[in-house]
This record gives sequence, structure tokens and C-alpha cells, in this order.
Amino acid sequence: MGELKKVLILGAGYGGIVTAVHLQKQLGLNEADVTLVNNNDYHYLTTQLHEPAAGTLHHDKTRVSIDSLIDSNKIRFVQGHVTAIRPDEQRVSLENREDELEYDYLVIGLGSAPATFGIKGLLEHSMGIRNIDSVRMIRQHIEYMFSRYRNEPEREDYLTVVVGGAGFTGIEFVGELADRIPQLCKEYDIPREKVRLVNIEAAPSALPGFDKELVDYAVSTLEKKGVEFLIGTPIKECHENGVIVGDGEEIKAATVIWTGGVTGNPLVEEAGFEVQRGRVPVDEYLRAPNYDNVFVIGDSSLMFNDEGRPYPPTAQMATQQGQHLARNLVALIRDGQLTPFKFETKGTVASLGKGEAIGIVGKRKLYGWTAAQMKKLIDLRYLFIIGGLPLVLRKGKFF
Amino acid sequence: MGELKKVLILGAGYGGIVTAVHLQKQLGLNEADVTLVNNNDYHYLTTQLHEPAAGTLHHDKTRVSIDSLIDSNKIRFVQGHVTAIRPDEQRVSLENREDELEYDYLVIGLGSAPATFGIKGLLEHSMGIRNIDSVRMIRQHIEYMFSRYRNEPEREDYLTVVVGGAGFTGIEFVGELADRIPQLCKEYDIPREKVRLVNIEAAPSALPGFDKELVDYAVSTLEKKGVEFLIGTPIKECHENGVIVGDGEEIKAATVIWTGGVTGNPLVEEAGFEVQRGRVPVDEYLRAPNYDNVFVIGDSSLMFNDEGRPYPPTAQMATQQGQHLARNLVALIRDGQLTPFKFETKGTVASLGKGEAIGIVGKRKLYGWTAAQMKKLIDLRYLFIIGGLPLVLRKGKFF
Repeated sequence: MGELKKVLILGAGYGGIVTAVHLQKQLGLNEADVTLVNNNDYHYLTTQLHEPAAGTLHHDKTRVSIDSLIDSNKIRFVQGHVTAIRPDEQRVSLENREDELEYDYLVIGLGSAPATFGIKGLLEHSMGIRNIDSVRMIRQHIEYMFSRYRNEPEREDYLTVVVGGAGFTGIEFVGELADRIPQLCKEYDIPREKVRLVNIEAAPSALPGFDKELVDYAVSTLEKKGVEFLIGTPIKECHENGVIVGDGEEIKAATVIWTGGVTGNPLVEEAGFEVQRGRVPVDEYLRAPNYDNVFVIGDSSLMFNDEGRPYPPTAQMATQQGQHLARNLVALIRDGQLTPFKFETKGTVASLGKGEAIGIVGKRKLYGWTAAQMKKLIDLRYLFIIGGLPLVLRKGKFF
Repeated sequence: MGELKKVLILGAGYGGIVTAVHLQKQLGLNEADVTLVNNNDYHYLTTQLHEPAAGTLHHDKTRVSIDSLIDSNKIRFVQGHVTAIRPDEQRVSLENREDELEYDYLVIGLGSAPATFGIKGLLEHSMGIRNIDSVRMIRQHIEYMFSRYRNEPEREDYLTVVVGGAGFTGIEFVGELADRIPQLCKEYDIPREKVRLVNIEAAPSALPGFDKELVDYAVSTLEKKGVEFLIGTPIKECHENGVIVGDGEEIKAATVIWTGGVTGNPLVEEAGFEVQRGRVPVDEYLRAPNYDNVFVIGDSSLMFNDEGRPYPPTAQMATQQGQHLARNLVALIRDGQLTPFKFETKGTVASLGKGEAIGIVGKRKLYGWTAAQMKKLIDLRYLFIIGGLPLVLRKGKFF
């Protein structure tokens, strides 16, 4: 028996943590040398971040300590920030660390970066629903602006929130925030009619590509909660006082949240991997082009469906990739056969705030309460996948 | 019987609300035409505002709706902002109101304005513990800065709070905030040692004029909670990144709270009343010089003790003035005799945060838990004065 194979997993998002958890289930003690690297000592549930961002759920409910998921007898956890990947040397550098990490097999699950589509000022003057730090700041930013209003009542822009992008994240966020606004108005002695929540989308429809009937239901549900939609309206520019939209109109807003899209983590392109729009087109075994020992999963990977269209990056995709990759890594370690990955959609559900959602599961369209229950089931199922029943009980939302 | 005398009370702070409440107790129906004017539809407890400012108590616990204190059969309440007092015409103007209010007897209880002692940039770049709107903003400002830190970890100034002034308000505020910081650190994933809370005082001692032994106790108690003191150190300048102190040293701080002093409401000087440092020196009947029908109470009034030194403006003073003035107004309405006002100190207690305080009651010095209980009793007693037992039960803090 030779030296143990070194498996290095970068990132503990959906793809990375699922790979790690499944590896530790399937591997025996001392069967491989597995390391997981992550910025934080916790994993977070990106698909639920719209709730802590709006302030309707505490952020601790959307994160899980890695310690509670990883068995340190089987996987070494390193908290650190990846600064460079050198695939030809099979090495990875971390911030503030002299020594580099080596690998035989590398799993890149480093998530995404915001796609700004060249909109001027967007990165500087907007916030994103990206991670625990950013959503906690969004929650506090909105409250701070509300708290300032009565001290400077001429500043009505303090009470305007612009959300750029009406995809899943944008729609789910405005749904939550619309639910929160009445509480904020009470807390800060502000009349509801002073508050504006504007969702702006460049595409000709909200939730581009989704079933029209469901989209109409979503828009009308959210409009009833007080959300204003500007659809088919690109944001031209973002500055410190708000945004300028398609026809040159300025919307003054002290809070701008950008949910308009993501691209791959820039580290993958910097590492020299082939990319298309920032994401690595992986083969059926999730391998990067030209590197049989490098696997890319989650938001930095690019896969195409049978019609040759790219799959959108989702938690569902990353989770399935992680589960499959863990099996293939075990096969590699045991000199077995790799099996090809195929994405199987389990359906899509989007929350519209408390007790409201829309979705498609199989061929079935879901609305309202039923869809909201399905959304909860999906969230619970994911918790079960990574942490079993104890995690479901600890972090699950049951009502 | 002639026309009813018009009594106009401006401001529902300690002085104004106590005057109003005692008038309504002592006057019969249709014995006088009494109007109370106030910015907000609530009275607030200024001496407790350091708690909602620090976020250790909800601001609703420190305000009482005027509606619940005033009997509308006896007193007309007008919510409005006083813009001018014209004592020669016996009229008062309100913002956004064509008609003016007339009076036979005027009570001015319009509170204070911050005294900046000419410190450059202070009004623009600091916040004050002044009213519900301002303390709610302070609470949110501090949290917002904490929430930003992990997104911009080079900005350590986000975690520094400078409090200018170590008088009663400053000391009570740093005591509360020191209690809150561990919670904030937990909420925002920040190591406690990154946070600085700096209390700066120009005078050679904290709590200038107070008993030295008690001051030493206060300072050492607060230092143990992590407060840094810069005593005998004037603030030279305040700018958007912090303050510059005595020797030119810059303290970078994203939050600056000024508690260094108050002066009278500028409206009294604008109205042509004689003032000394912004406050109206009143006679023994609390009357403004040259105007026998104008009474000034609370922070805009100036009174001297037997040694000829000015009394500091306190809630205790305003409350006693209000109680006395109500009796004198009843006397005027009934053509009776005015009695002279004399301030009787009931002692002074300053909170140092949870379960800790210092104080002098009579000749007795109080420390720690005993003083903290006394502080609670004083707050309860005041609630009893303005709203009786129901208010004590509704707003009182008993533990």
C-alpha cells in the first residue's frame, strides 16, 4: 500500500460540504488524506439568505458550524482564504500562510462572484445577498436608514429600497422584505405609505424563463404586499443616491441590493482553467478541461442540458454534484470506475414571503400555502443530507 | 364671571407635562382654557434615554403617550412644532399652521439644545442623546457599523465609539454600552478586543463637581467593563472619521456621541427674552424678566442656589418647577397669591450599567446594587407623579 491519496476540497458551500460529508461517510479511517478549506468555520444556506437579509429570520438559523458536520478523524478542516490555485504544481496557497496545500485530487467549490454586466457604480454602491456577513449588513443598513429618517425627514430616499434583478433571489428577498416593512414602520414611527420597495428587472419578465402563469401569480401576490415592479427596465447606473434606469429616470434610494446574477469565482480563471463567462465547462465526470485530477462543482462550474443550454447555477445542482463527486472520488481512491454525472431536476420553488410561494415539482404547478410547505420540505431535506436528523431538528423551520 | 383665562403650555417634557398633569388635577371643568403643545404625541423620559441609545432597553419603555396622561375634557392637546413666541402680542406660531395660539399665561418648557462650546464639526459629525428619534438612530448606527466591519475588516474605526463628555449622561451611556458590547460582538462575530469605547472629558475629573470618592468608584467600575477614559482632555475637532483631542492626537471612530452639555432652546432668545448663556434667568415665581405672564421651566430656565451658582438643568429641577408652577397658575386663575419656588434636592444617582450605580441621597453615599435600586425607585416615583400607579405598572422597570 502506497502513501494515502490527498484530496483537497476548497470551499464549504453546497458543493464542497456535501462532497466532504459524503466522503467521510463512504471512506474508512486512513483510507485517504482529506482536507477541507473554507473562509469561515461555518457552512451557510445560501438559498435562505434572503430571510436574514430582510431581517425575518436570524442569520444563525442559516448557518451550521463545520465542526458539527465534519468528523475530524476523517477530514482535516483548515479555516483560511484561498489566494491561488496552481494546477500544474498541484498546490494551493492560502492568505497569511507560508506553507502551501498539496493535493492528488482537487475539488473546487469556491462559489460565485456577482455579475455586474458592466453597470457603472454597481459594485461600489450596492450590496449583495452573498453570505452571512453581507446579509447581516443589509439587514442593519435598512434599519439604520429607517432610523435616520425622522431625524432628516426631507430624506425620503432613506425609505426606498431598490432591488436589482427579479430572478429567484430578488423575488424571494422582496417577498420577505415586504413582510418586514410593517414592523419596521412601527419600530421607527414611519407611515407605511412613505416606504418604497422597487424591484427592477432588465428582462421582459420577472423570473425569466419560468412558467408564465406562476410568474403572474408571483408578481400579483407581491404587488398586493406593496412591491413596485419595473420589468423590462435595465439599470444603467448605480450611484450613492440611487439608480438610473432605462429611460434616464433616477430613482433615489439609500439602499440598493443587487441580485441580478453571478459568475464563477475569479480564482478559477486566474488559475489558468478554461472558462466561459467566468465558469469552467466541466466534463461528465465534473473535471476541468485538461486536468483529470481537478473537479469543479457549484457556481464556478458550467454544464449544459440536452438542448445545449447552460444549467443555471443552483444549490440543487451543487448538491447533486457533490453527492456524485464523493462517489467518484471513492472510486478513484479504490482504483474503481468513474460514473458520469447527470443532473436530475427535483423541481423549483420560490418563496414569496410568509406562507406564500410558487413552484414546479415534476409537471405540477404549486401555489400559495402548498408551495410554501414544499419550500420548507426542500430546506429540511437539504439539512438532512448534510447533517441528518440532529441538524434538521436544530436548524429546521417547521412552521 | 369673565372669559376663561387661556393657559398655554409649550413642550411636554418633564416641566411641561408635570405642569399640565397637576393643573388638570387641581382645576375644575371649565375653570380655565388650557392647551398643551408638543412636537410628538408622546412624552419621553430623558433621564432613561441612555438605555435605548445603547440598545439595552426598547425606546417604547421610555415614552408615554400624551393621550394616556391628559384628560381631553380639561386640556386641549395640539401636536405641533413651535416656530416663534411673540410675548408682546401674547401669541405663539406653529409650523404649517396659519392660525396662531393666544394666551393669558404662557409656560415655556421647550427643553434644551446641545452646547458645542465652539468645537469644530461637532454638530455635523456627532449624535446626541436627545430624544426618541436620536437615540433610536444611535442604537442603529452602532449596530450598522458593527455589521459593516466584517465586510471591510481594515476599518477598525467601525468598532470604536467615542463619547464626548463624562457628565451624568456620558457616564450612564458608557455604562450601558459597555454592557451591550459583548452581545454585539456575538451578533456580529467580532472579537471583543477589537472594540473600543472611549469616554473623553475636558474637565479634570469625570462627573465634574461630584463627590470624589464616588467618581473614583464610577471610573474604576467602568474601566473594569472596558471603558477607556481620557480625562482633562478637550475635543478640539470632530470630523467624519473621528475626533482630534487636546494634544492633536486623532482617534478614528465611526461613532461619536456628544453628551458634553446643553443650553436653552434658541427659541427663547429669538423671542426676545433676556438670556444668560442661552437660558432665561427666572425670578422666584419662575417668571421671565419683564413678562409677568410668562413662566420658563426646565432646561431653558436659569436659577441660582444660595451661593449664587447656577443649578444644573435636571429632570428633578424641571419636575419640581412644574409641580410648583401648576399651584401658582391655579392661584392666578382664582385670583390667589403666588408662592415662591425653592428647589429641594432629593439626591442624585447615576447608573453605571446593569446592577451598578453611584449616588448621594441626603448626606449618604450609595454604591453598587443599593444605588442601582435607588435609581429604579427614582424612575418609578417620577412615573407615579405623572401617571399614577397605572403608568408605574405599565412602564416601570422592576428588575
